[in-house]
Amino acid sequence: MSIDNAKQLFTTVTDDGKLVLSVEPYDVPEPAEHEVVVQMEAVPINPSDLGLLLAPAQMDTVRSEEVDGHPALVADVDPAMMRLFAGRKGKKLPAGNEGAGTVVAAGSSEAAQALLGKVVTIVGGEMYRTHRVMPAMMCVPLPDGAPAKEGASLFVNPMTVQGFLNTMRAEGHEALVHTAAASNLGQMLAKLCLKEGVPLVAIVRSAEQKTILTDIGLPENHVLDSTTDSFMPDLVDALAETGATLGFDAVGGGKLANYILTAMEQAAAKRGAEFSVYGSTVHKQVYIYGRLDTGETILGAGYGLYWGVGGWLLTPHLEEVGMDRMMEMRQFAVAERNGIFHSDYTREISLMEMIDPDVATAYEKKATGAKVLVNPSL
Amino acid sequence: MSIDNAKQLFTTVTDDGKLVLSVEPYDVPEPAEHEVVVQMEAVPINPSDLGLLLAPAQMDTVRSEEVDGHPALVADVDPAMMRLFAGRKGKKLPAGNEGAGTVVAAGSSEAAQALLGKVVTIVGGEMYRTHRVMPAMMCVPLPDGAPAKEGASLFVNPMTVQGFLNTMRAEGHEALVHTAAASNLGQMLAKLCLKEGVPLVAIVRSAEQKTILTDIGLPENHVLDSTTDSFMPDLVDALAETGATLGFDAVGGGKLANYILTAMEQAAAKRGAEFSVYGSTVHKQVYIYGRLDTGETILGAGYGLYWGVGGWLLTPHLEEVGMDRMMEMRQFAVAERNGIFHSDYTREISLMEMIDPDVATAYEKKATGAKVLVNPSL
Repeated sequence: MSIDNAKQLFTTVTDDGKLVLSVEPYDVPEPAEHEVVVQMEAVPINPSDLGLLLAPAQMDTVRSEEVDGHPALVADVDPAMMRLFAGRKGKKLPAGNEGAGTVVAAGSSEAAQALLGKVVTIVGGEMYRTHRVMPAMMCVPLPDGAPAKEGASLFVNPMTVQGFLNTMRAEGHEALVHTAAASNLGQMLAKLCLKEGVPLVAIVRSAEQKTILTDIGLPENHVLDSTTDSFMPDLVDALAETGATLGFDAVGGGKLANYILTAMEQAAAKRGAEFSVYGSTVHKQVYIYGRLDTGETILGAGYGLYWGVGGWLLTPHLEEVGMDRMMEMRQFAVAERNGIFHSDYTREISLMEMIDPDVATAYEKKATGAKVLVNPSL
Repeated sequence: MSIDNAKQLFTTVTDDGKLVLSVEPYDVPEPAEHEVVVQMEAVPINPSDLGLLLAPAQMDTVRSEEVDGHPALVADVDPAMMRLFAGRKGKKLPAGNEGAGTVVAAGSSEAAQALLGKVVTIVGGEMYRTHRVMPAMMCVPLPDGAPAKEGASLFVNPMTVQGFLNTMRAEGHEALVHTAAASNLGQMLAKLCLKEGVPLVAIVRSAEQKTILTDIGLPENHVLDSTTDSFMPDLVDALAETGATLGFDAVGGGKLANYILTAMEQAAAKRGAEFSVYGSTVHKQVYIYGRLDTGETILGAGYGLYWGVGGWLLTPHLEEVGMDRMMEMRQFAVAERNGIFHSDYTREISLMEMIDPDVATAYEKKATGAKVLVNPSL
């Protein structure tokens, strides 16, 4: 369809070992019967977006260049790391997991037409562009008058923390442990657990991070700073008090999962759990959902055989819970957009600023608890 | 009830740091209405029994002594290891997971009376004794004329390998990987997989072990010796060919689980699997069911987030599958006692020989693929 000046961002690892983020013209397709065209106005840069955007780049080499006639940010890729990106080499990839904007065109179906003029929150990749064509059924409208910014980040983190509680209930646990717990996601989880009465043991790495969570309302003795000397005994006490036997870990590498499982086993003893020669007979589980530390995960042999460690991801989780539950979770995210699922942004930038070397260098440093918002319509 | 010369074995870690295996008189109780008395004639010494029997002992200190008037084997316990045995210190524990024998007395119920004179296979601990009182419903009779020896080892290993296949099917996998695969259990698994048409990738540690499994009928390129230079590429090929995404690991410590998950991820690429930024989207799982290596389990970050590692145990598995399926599995074990679930024994010994220092030193060395049988009625 005819939209002037529509643009999109691509991220490419080139055959000759460069990362290129380019902004190029976009020929917006005509929406089909059940589709709408969303003019994007608020797209966050999440930690999970940075993998596609800037993970390959040696950040001290970022520069502006024109590539194939398009303005671009270019950076060198460490040759030793190129094999990690073999799967995407030479492919121009779109990016951006989630966002919000205004429906400016719609197909002929009733569902599509009903969305015209509405501000909607959407998910599905390819969000760093001025316009995104979406199936109408995948768009969740915000209440009238709510700005797009309030709908920008209503999928990845809000659905993930609701997913943690789904998994907790499905697998028969009654309380949670969370690491890197003062993150934007961690704050949402803390608020959700408080609302739902689910005990949460939150592991952070500084006194400042601890204050963020006690200010939200978590009990002081359930927020543990892993850099303090009393971390392990405090963790055992908190786990014994809450009965948490399920952890979600954003760190991945190192011994954090091992410490959590070890402390769960000691807490089980304190709670008078049944023991066998294979350890306490309550199942202890840690799911890794992020990789802040990409080193090896090291697990000891000190907690018997009633345990598990594994990856946890939102996409297969949502397939598991099914469409009805997913829509319920999305509606809850919209209802709590200014409460449990409120996000702060440090800065609002345009598509062109995404490829400005100074701006990119700033947003590549993942801020804890706050992030950058892109407004492609600027 | 009045049975002459009934005896039982106890294993004790004493307060002053000794391991004592003693043989003491046993006053056999009268069976209740639904119970029978089994005269034990065949009780194996499994690797899982050695934990209770001799794990605490420094084997170079074993000696014969009389303890509290009873004949006993005594050994020193490494003082540094005593905290591992704090839970059992001072407690006289019976031992022996499974076994078989003849029903020599029965309670008044019809079910109990029907077992009189039958040879039955049983499980439930406390088997290293001349007589074991059991609920009639827990006894599975062998066909008439079958000797007790054929029923000795029909629970731990046969139920475990059937459990592996239950788990494989319940979790949606279609082929298996197994480590320490030439063990008694491993041979049973190989035969069961061949019978049921389930592809099995077997990891062993020597050419001799490999021959054991190819003689059973596993294809040569599915039996991999981890000490050879081509182990990793061969493993990737075998996993790509079979599509195995579930492993059962008897080793636990070290990097074996990591190698299996890494190879599964590479095999997924070869099979043209769908990929995301979080790795191949097929779930890859390794269950640890033994701890031949009690060191740390070390997992890399090279296979995305669609994976899991955890403990696997027979007892909770059987609770999960329920009584009907469990009885079906036990009947299958009896039917295949001379086929899939045949066990070889290197030697048959008496209760008194269990506490002979020379004999104990021999059976403590866990033989691969064969084990020692105790006949308490000798």
